[in-house]
Amino acid sequence: MKQRIGFMGLGIMGVAMAANIARAGFPLTVYNRTPGRDLELKKFGVTSAASPRALGEASDVIIAMVTGPEALEHLLWGPDGAAESLKAGKTFINMSSVSPMFTRELGERLAASGVVFIDAPVSGSKKPAEDGTLLILAGGPEAEIAALSPLFEAMGKSVIYCGEAGQGSMMKMMNNLLLGAMLEGLAEALNFGKHGGLSMDAMLEVVLNGPLSCPIFKMKADMLKTNEFPANFPLKHMTKDIKFVVDTAYANGAPVPAALALLQVFRLGVGQQWGDLDVAAVSRVLQFLSDAE
Amino acid sequence: MKQRIGFMGLGIMGVAMAANIARAGFPLTVYNRTPGRDLELKKFGVTSAASPRALGEASDVIIAMVTGPEALEHLLWGPDGAAESLKAGKTFINMSSVSPMFTRELGERLAASGVVFIDAPVSGSKKPAEDGTLLILAGGPEAEIAALSPLFEAMGKSVIYCGEAGQGSMMKMMNNLLLGAMLEGLAEALNFGKHGGLSMDAMLEVVLNGPLSCPIFKMKADMLKTNEFPANFPLKHMTKDIKFVVDTAYANGAPVPAALALLQVFRLGVGQQWGDLDVAAVSRVLQFLSDAE
Amino acid sequence: MKQRIGFMGLGIMGVAMAANIARAGFPLTVYNRTPGRDLELKKFGVTSAASPRALGEASDVIIAMVTGPEALEHLLWGPDGAAESLKAGKTFINMSSVSPMFTRELGERLAASGVVFIDAPVSGSKKPAEDGTLLILAGGPEAEIAALSPLFEAMGKSVIYCGEAGQGSMMKMMNNLLLGAMLEGLAEALNFGKHGGLSMDAMLEVVLNGPLSCPIFKMKADMLKTNEFPANFPLKHMTKDIKFVVDTAYANGAPVPAALALLQVFRLGVGQQWGDLDVAAVSRVLQFLSDAE
Amino acid sequence: MKQRIGFMGLGIMGVAMAANIARAGFPLTVYNRTPGRDLELKKFGVTSAASPRALGEASDVIIAMVTGPEALEHLLWGPDGAAESLKAGKTFINMSSVSPMFTRELGERLAASGVVFIDAPVSGSKKPAEDGTLLILAGGPEAEIAALSPLFEAMGKSVIYCGEAGQGSMMKMMNNLLLGAMLEGLAEALNFGKHGGLSMDAMLEVVLNGPLSCPIFKMKADMLKTNEFPANFPLKHMTKDIKFVVDTAYANGAPVPAALALLQVFRLGVGQQWGDLDVAAVSRVLQFLSDAE
Repeated sequence: MKQRIGFMGLGIMGVAMAANIARAGFPLTVYNRTPGRDLELKKFGVTSAASPRALGEASDVIIAMVTGPEALEHLLWGPDGAAESLKAGKTFINMSSVSPMFTRELGERLAASGVVFIDAPVSGSKKPAEDGTLLILAGGPEAEIAALSPLFEAMGKSVIYCGEAGQGSMMKMMNNLLLGAMLEGLAEALNFGKHGGLSMDAMLEVVLNGPLSCPIFKMKADMLKTNEFPANFPLKHMTKDIKFVVDTAYANGAPVPAALALLQVFRLGVGQQWGDLDVAAVSRVLQFLSDAE
Repeated sequence: MKQRIGFMGLGIMGVAMAANIARAGFPLTVYNRTPGRDLELKKFGVTSAASPRALGEASDVIIAMVTGPEALEHLLWGPDGAAESLKAGKTFINMSSVSPMFTRELGERLAASGVVFIDAPVSGSKKPAEDGTLLILAGGPEAEIAALSPLFEAMGKSVIYCGEAGQGSMMKMMNNLLLGAMLEGLAEALNFGKHGGLSMDAMLEVVLNGPLSCPIFKMKADMLKTNEFPANFPLKHMTKDIKFVVDTAYANGAPVPAALALLQVFRLGVGQQWGDLDVAAVSRVLQFLSDAE
Repeated sequence: MKQRIGFMGLGIMGVAMAANIARAGFPLTVYNRTPGRDLELKKFGVTSAASPRALGEASDVIIAMVTGPEALEHLLWGPDGAAESLKAGKTFINMSSVSPMFTRELGERLAASGVVFIDAPVSGSKKPAEDGTLLILAGGPEAEIAALSPLFEAMGKSVIYCGEAGQGSMMKMMNNLLLGAMLEGLAEALNFGKHGGLSMDAMLEVVLNGPLSCPIFKMKADMLKTNEFPANFPLKHMTKDIKFVVDTAYANGAPVPAALALLQVFRLGVGQQWGDLDVAAVSRVLQFLSDAE
Repeated sequence: MKQRIGFMGLGIMGVAMAANIARAGFPLTVYNRTPGRDLELKKFGVTSAASPRALGEASDVIIAMVTGPEALEHLLWGPDGAAESLKAGKTFINMSSVSPMFTRELGERLAASGVVFIDAPVSGSKKPAEDGTLLILAGGPEAEIAALSPLFEAMGKSVIYCGEAGQGSMMKMMNNLLLGAMLEGLAEALNFGKHGGLSMDAMLEVVLNGPLSCPIFKMKADMLKTNEFPANFPLKHMTKDIKFVVDTAYANGAPVPAALALLQVFRLGVGQQWGDLDVAAVSRVLQFLSDAE
């Protein structure tokens, strides 16, 4: 018999992921703090819960996909929170992006209840969420993660096992460090070339058609051309992730020369009030640091 | 009537590019400093010249694809050099990777002869050279470059016009800055993740299947897994390119925080005698800087 | 009538400071966790307390000069701790080096008792402590600090008022950032000069006789000459202070390019097991990063 | 018999140095490109030459103290230049600040004439020049430098032998690297402290009365307090020196993490049009990079 799934957090990503779970035939209950977000899921026959707690009681596997630690805290331990409904035999999966440290604390707080705890942030944004082609970065007990394959496969193209709970988030941080280095690198190379007399169009044509071309560069190319940066992944979130990388590297002795350079540049952008723009606005920071032409 | 092409420099890249020119039906003469490299081109009916000068005399368009400034100097102004055979009505195309500065000097020295000078380094390595899918980064007179489209299209999938002579090399430097940032970023992220308890295989699976995946990462993944770095693009060449970027940025006022971090890390690798390994050996530098585990 | 002073922590600094308090004629009670350290103070007629609590009960003004947060925690809230004896009308002065954050927490925990809390770390090491020429960096209620002038003047040549409690420690961090930049700068310049063919003796002669000469460089010159680094101020403590600076700067938006460079270099030294050497062992780190000669 | 001295370059430093030579009783001829600068030397009975060449002919030892390579070039090889008058048996001492590289080239160009070449830049500015307490950083043949002690001692408090010609300039670069690190460190620490709520006066009191206090900090304190930076040593010159350090370190394998951080910050100041201000204007750069308060 199919397990009953509960899904909390119907933002841009969450709605798409929940829709894919429902399409795959799982009995699904949903909850969102702001009401009305469940309307477009009605056609899939999903049930709406009146509270996180009600959702928890109606589900075997509870998924959270929210904006961060505060929202998670509220859903679990706020009024009518889900925490009380979590008990042995149930599984709680956090797919929201939070730090490995917060994830481990979460795991410890939930341990007493006997619930199985899995952390499973994703790589990929809106489009892969809709297409069900996310990469799922899973940390927690390996057998339970394997047993949940059908559920994960409804949302993503593959599940990558990262280790114990917290390691999914660690993988996400590793990936975001690389993402930061690549986007800053792109912005820095383009700005360097511009000062050397190259045209933006020609440079992007070279990058996007050669061995350095990747989906993320294609996604950001228009922002860089137009110098407008509507947030997909806000600069301030990336800045926080890089600070996490620097702190963790300080503790475990990994050298992070790029991360330290990124920290300076990204933090400067936040200080210039560009933190709510997309991370590609690092390009603005480099312009700010350039000689007047 | 097809123009007569001369091709000097039959290294790994050069042989493949010359073969594609011959296959496209251009009458082709070749020359290589070390003899014997022309054997595998015989089947295409190419002619071998006894000297750069002889090649220059037998050709309308002369291409050089050699290891750097010294080799170019030798081919052009060494004994029986090609320079004397270059004159008005002929075209000289340098496809070797050299600095924009050297390129501009080259252009000035050739100007007196009346030859048309084009700089056209490429993005892409062995495989794209064989498949004729290189990106050609062309600087020089735009009309002449356009008129040579059939020749360039024999070697590459597209010709990107970069500006006057020297700007092809500038484009190459811009691209190599990004390449350096991406490879150091990958090595740094992987080393960071390893210290955080993640497995190399899982990390590469995430990177190579998500939005950061690109051909260059796929090419280098095995090196990073095995910690062996047979040179494709040697670390010492990348280090020199990054020094060029830093010097140019100092002059023209572009901020290059990543390039400065790269300069430290790459130069340290050269100082540790890893300069002849592939640039991906930056991974060794990061291990060298890590706490003992 | 003179206030009764209690002094906890008879390390190298503490013994010298306590001796100066006694010499100035203050009635003095002392305590040290490891017994026997009070022997050399006997000649000044000081009383030894059996516990921090006993010391607190016998004193109006209680001073702590210990190795860090753990030791303070133990003295105050450990078995027979001094905290219980602190009450309205008494004053507690922490002269140990701890972070501003820890200092503010300490102040909050002590607030309920009604005790006046002052933080007063010092600038200067063994010699100024013995000579009574320390700089005292005082944070807390200004009137109380002024009223304690005779006590502070027994230990130091001047009291610098830094603001509310916590700001004394902030001043100490500011000073240690500069100290770190100067010592790394000295080691880097000397190593650079050595690679450029200059002799260590000649370089130190230039530095120590010109406008850059300062007491701290004179103190460290022998270490740099002999490449031996018996700890005066251990590298690992400096590393922790620089991490504090980086974290604070991240929060309040001060750019710290030097601190970020220092963090890399100092942390590398700790990772190479040189953390217990003097901070001047940053010189070893620079040798480690140098090309083999 | 006293040697006849010729002194070219009567700027702020040069006038003071020439006056001290004359006071010491050496027969002195002077020359300055802009006329009138010799007036205040008349009282010492110095002779004015009509041209560098005339000065060279009238002197056994010729000293140059000018603004840089261009001025030296002009004095030596410009119209009526001194070069033609330099020959075996005479000595040419360059005390102007130029790079070791330029110094070595100068030495090579002068070698053919048989003149003895010494490079001898100084540490110290206007006041020590007037007081005759400069440090003289001498490179060249050791015996000749020793024989010139009376001359050098007229100008400075000591002569430090640095090695062959060029090494005096190398010593100056080593010293300027340290100077740059100290001034940026001071500006960074003060800006950090200001963002942490400390007052500028209190911070300077701590720095200037503790073990980090040095003459250079005392000289710059007012600039930092008032945020006005009349040039003593212009930021653009320091920036050029740090670029020299980075280039040299790249070549000889010395790690220069601080120099790379300084290069970014100083170059940014030049790009913001603060290059003609004093190097202490690095404080402005740090303000520019700070969060708005």
